[in-house]
Amino acid sequence: MKIAILSSIHWRTPPIKYGPWELIASRIAEGMVKLGHTVTLYATGDSETTARLKWVCPKPIMENSALEPKVYQYLHTASVFEDADQYDIIHNHYDAFPLCFSKLVKTPVVTTIHGFSSPQVIQIYKRYSNTYYVSISYADRKHAPDLNYIANIYHGIPVNEYPYNSKPDNYFCFIGRISPDKGVHNAIRLVKKLNINLKIAGLIGSENKDYFEKEIKPHLNSKIQYLGLINEEKKKSLLKNAYGFLHLNTYPEGFGLTLIEAMATGTPVIGMNLGSIPEVIENQKTGFVVSSLEEAEKAIKQLAKIKRENCRQRVEKYFSLERMIDEYEKVYLKILGKRRAH
Amino acid sequence: MKIAILSSIHWRTPPIKYGPWELIASRIAEGMVKLGHTVTLYATGDSETTARLKWVCPKPIMENSALEPKVYQYLHTASVFEDADQYDIIHNHYDAFPLCFSKLVKTPVVTTIHGFSSPQVIQIYKRYSNTYYVSISYADRKHAPDLNYIANIYHGIPVNEYPYNSKPDNYFCFIGRISPDKGVHNAIRLVKKLNINLKIAGLIGSENKDYFEKEIKPHLNSKIQYLGLINEEKKKSLLKNAYGFLHLNTYPEGFGLTLIEAMATGTPVIGMNLGSIPEVIENQKTGFVVSSLEEAEKAIKQLAKIKRENCRQRVEKYFSLERMIDEYEKVYLKILGKRRAH
Repeated sequence: MKIAILSSIHWRTPPIKYGPWELIASRIAEGMVKLGHTVTLYATGDSETTARLKWVCPKPIMENSALEPKVYQYLHTASVFEDADQYDIIHNHYDAFPLCFSKLVKTPVVTTIHGFSSPQVIQIYKRYSNTYYVSISYADRKHAPDLNYIANIYHGIPVNEYPYNSKPDNYFCFIGRISPDKGVHNAIRLVKKLNINLKIAGLIGSENKDYFEKEIKPHLNSKIQYLGLINEEKKKSLLKNAYGFLHLNTYPEGFGLTLIEAMATGTPVIGMNLGSIPEVIENQKTGFVVSSLEEAEKAIKQLAKIKRENCRQRVEKYFSLERMIDEYEKVYLKILGKRRAH
Repeated sequence: MKIAILSSIHWRTPPIKYGPWELIASRIAEGMVKLGHTVTLYATGDSETTARLKWVCPKPIMENSALEPKVYQYLHTASVFEDADQYDIIHNHYDAFPLCFSKLVKTPVVTTIHGFSSPQVIQIYKRYSNTYYVSISYADRKHAPDLNYIANIYHGIPVNEYPYNSKPDNYFCFIGRISPDKGVHNAIRLVKKLNINLKIAGLIGSENKDYFEKEIKPHLNSKIQYLGLINEEKKKSLLKNAYGFLHLNTYPEGFGLTLIEAMATGTPVIGMNLGSIPEVIENQKTGFVVSSLEEAEKAIKQLAKIKRENCRQRVEKYFSLERMIDEYEKVYLKILGKRRAH
């Protein structure tokens, strides 16, 4: 198949430190190349891929304030649709807006809905039911249950690249956007009460600088540390040595990529019962799905009951890269009405 | 001809109080209907037109914060291109972004560049040289001299709807956006020094609230008045009774619609020699083109030399609605390689 992957231009594809949409777009592009497909990746000019790279925007707009976002959003999106005749399918990872071009080309378009960026984008998804949607969890469909979903495909990770560790240190960790949605303040509240160690890492977006200053920074000390935005190697090390991962989110999670990364290294997760969390964590087996801070406190005390190998096994079974690529290829073939060639 | 006019959705078309892009889009739509063309206007749902109205966005986004601008910008723009097969020509008044759809349709697109909304949109205009551009003044082309301009067409007004007045009152006026670009603070500085009356009217955008509070409001008194954002009838009355119009702009003007409205009522204009001003004002005949506040002061003292009937005549000759409609029709025909049918 000739496949166009439209990534986001917020960050490089794959991202260097942060960028979940770009990460998944990259993994799918690389995976499809490995399956023998002819893949063109539309991403920032500094992106790296074994596919053919096409770009209009030279650098990530989040790192280059000189690049006017609206100008590059339009040019980037238009560029893939202007090439539509070259492809059997266009796979969109760049929010709902590219769908507004979809009726002007004959090539079918499938969109991975990485999250609903606002309630109003739902009307774009509804209007362009000529295209196909992939949800990243069944929970995320609740925002818009009636869309033209062709599949639910959980994100996958290259499990072998995540070192498994059966003997963790004595700290908990959280990795992700430092935001009230992710409940970093909840994790801090709990570890202070229980006098345990917490290591925090992740992006502080401009919209969350205040949150960090007021809710996080005052509590930092030798036991509660913020490590900044860390690279993949440091992330893996932080995860594998953690006794548990605390994801006490206050907003429904769309998927929760770091949760499966934690579990891949053997680290169990305590997550709030919001959004996709109960689809990712197998309750009482790879961590605990809790409904309050009181339940989270009990879960911490019971965490020794979780077998770390169960965490790893769940990721190998349900959240592997190979499984994700296989499912996306099936979706492409289903849309094109074809059978698998290999 | 079957003509699609893509207006802006910032304001209603035609606007009720402010909205120069929407005003010109409306005048062209109405003018083309009068010439017998089949016209479809793409604008907000509350717009009024004798053409066929098509809309996605129910109300002006500037007046309805519940409407997410990006969602409606994309949906509104896509709607005209999705109908492209129905039209001989698409006339875009909605900035550079719609051009990103232009290569996906066969219908030719002509854009009136109402101003360059940022330096970076120029690369969109450059990239879509498959389309045609109309400048609103020769001065405005200086921002991007090498574009695919097919014509320069000055804005036109229905001159007969502007009452001519040979006996003005003893005040000066300014109408326009209350912004440092428009030099409202310069006008105030000058009238205070000369102890003359000034009446100011126009929109205070959210970006200029500080400017108004600091530079304008402290100087308001019985001699220097701010009348708010006024409707068409009040505007005409304010203009026709003014002794002169003070437009001491600090930024190059793209066209200057209120200047021709002032001149239509017989009111001469003192304007800074920036952008289109010397194309609009005939120096020493319909006002003065000045290069400093000192020159502006001299101009005020010499304003009695200007014959108000000259102002009116210049507008009748160069800035009439009929002339503008005629020139746009010629552009459409030129693009389509056709001769005029009537």
